Amino acid sequence: MDLSSIKVIAFDADDTLWVNETFFREAELAFAKHLREFGDEDDIVEKLLDTEIRNLDTYGYGIKGFTLSMLETAHRLMGDKLSAETIDFILKKGKEMLAEPVEVLPHIEEVLQKLSKTHKLVVATKGDLLDQERKLVKSGLIDYFHHVEIVSDKKETQYKKLVKHLDIEPGEFLMVGNSLKSDVIPVLAMGGYAIHIPFHTTWSHEQVDEEIAHSKFKTLSNASDLLKLF
Amino acid sequence: MDLSSIKVIAFDADDTLWVNETFFREAELAFAKHLREFGDEDDIVEKLLDTEIRNLDTYGYGIKGFTLSMLETAHRLMGDKLSAETIDFILKKGKEMLAEPVEVLPHIEEVLQKLSKTHKLVVATKGDLLDQERKLVKSGLIDYFHHVEIVSDKKETQYKKLVKHLDIEPGEFLMVGNSLKSDVIPVLAMGGYAIHIPFHTTWSHEQVDEEIAHSKFKTLSNASDLLKLF
Repeated sequence: MDLSSIKVIAFDADDTLWVNETFFREAELAFAKHLREFGDEDDIVEKLLDTEIRNLDTYGYGIKGFTLSMLETAHRLMGDKLSAETIDFILKKGKEMLAEPVEVLPHIEEVLQKLSKTHKLVVATKGDLLDQERKLVKSGLIDYFHHVEIVSDKKETQYKKLVKHLDIEPGEFLMVGNSLKSDVIPVLAMGGYAIHIPFHTTWSHEQVDEEIAHSKFKTLSNASDLLKLF
Repeated sequence: MDLSSIKVIAFDADDTLWVNETFFREAELAFAKHLREFGDEDDIVEKLLDTEIRNLDTYGYGIKGFTLSMLETAHRLMGDKLSAETIDFILKKGKEMLAEPVEVLPHIEEVLQKLSKTHKLVVATKGDLLDQERKLVKSGLIDYFHHVEIVSDKKETQYKKLVKHLDIEPGEFLMVGNSLKSDVIPVLAMGGYAIHIPFHTTWSHEQVDEEIAHSKFKTLSNASDLLKLF
């Protein structure tokens, strides 16, 4: 892959720069355990996921929407038995998630440090604005980035806007991220470059079965391999 | 006020471009009525406001955080008597607010149409990213703006970043908005121009008692008066 044309490298945030999905999976399991009188744990997780996906257009991505979806699922499953204790449990769980420390993924800091000397780096992420800004500050990574683009979704339209906003051509843009659906497919579609660094946990809604073969695309198992490409 | 140096005009969104606060006040009253067995309506509204302000650092601005604060207040007030019906009422109220039609304020469209021919216009707003983008599209105003800056807060720091991002000097920046606290004071502090167009309802947390006298500041009672200044 020839990356000599690249002017701007955009990094996804959650599960590319730092651990995120793990906290959602842990919260789902804790929720299912709390509600175990009302169903099998796997079924409860499945129902929560249903609610989250149905609410995605209304609530968007992030912890607040997830918390509201936990409340709605508890209401559906428990009916009139929904208790003050459960509400309290869910509200606290949401606040705990928002206060979670940021765990930067291996090699990320070294990679950003080196690439920031030769390229303009930006963060391109969906999710709660306040939550993402907070994580960027806590991570200590904020100074490596020129700026942060928080988008409501990651489809081809949003990437086209981003490239226009950056005043570059699609072929001068490289996206690095853990989601084929959000960080790779729409970027290749508009003519940009994409690098996929899988994270061990991917939200089922972000999974795609496709195999991707494309001259502007590569999968890396380790963020430090990024440096070898430049 | 001499506005000949202005290159970029930023508009606040909620209660400057369209009606917003009214929906929050209506939701607070509906919430208080629903809980009237548990207290005087004014007291309930007061307690909800307390919760909102305490949660502002955690949840930020917007309808999702407001919904979570209604749930928390209901839990505080009702204790073990918190019922499934109340949870359902609050979750529905939040979703209704997110689906509310957008009511553009008088003269705004005419003003944007004219000013967009001579100046770069941007939207500078805090609140839910997805919700604000949705309202911009629904309002039909999106095409008048060069782009939208959604910020987690409106303090001097954020305005400095915005001006830097826009590649202009503070003295080339004019902010138009309904909140002295968010749209005027921090902008004047960094050396920008500000125009205050009060909206009939202001969230008590946004109110300031100060009288402002400043050569770069003006209050207008009507958005159409903006055109007379240029």
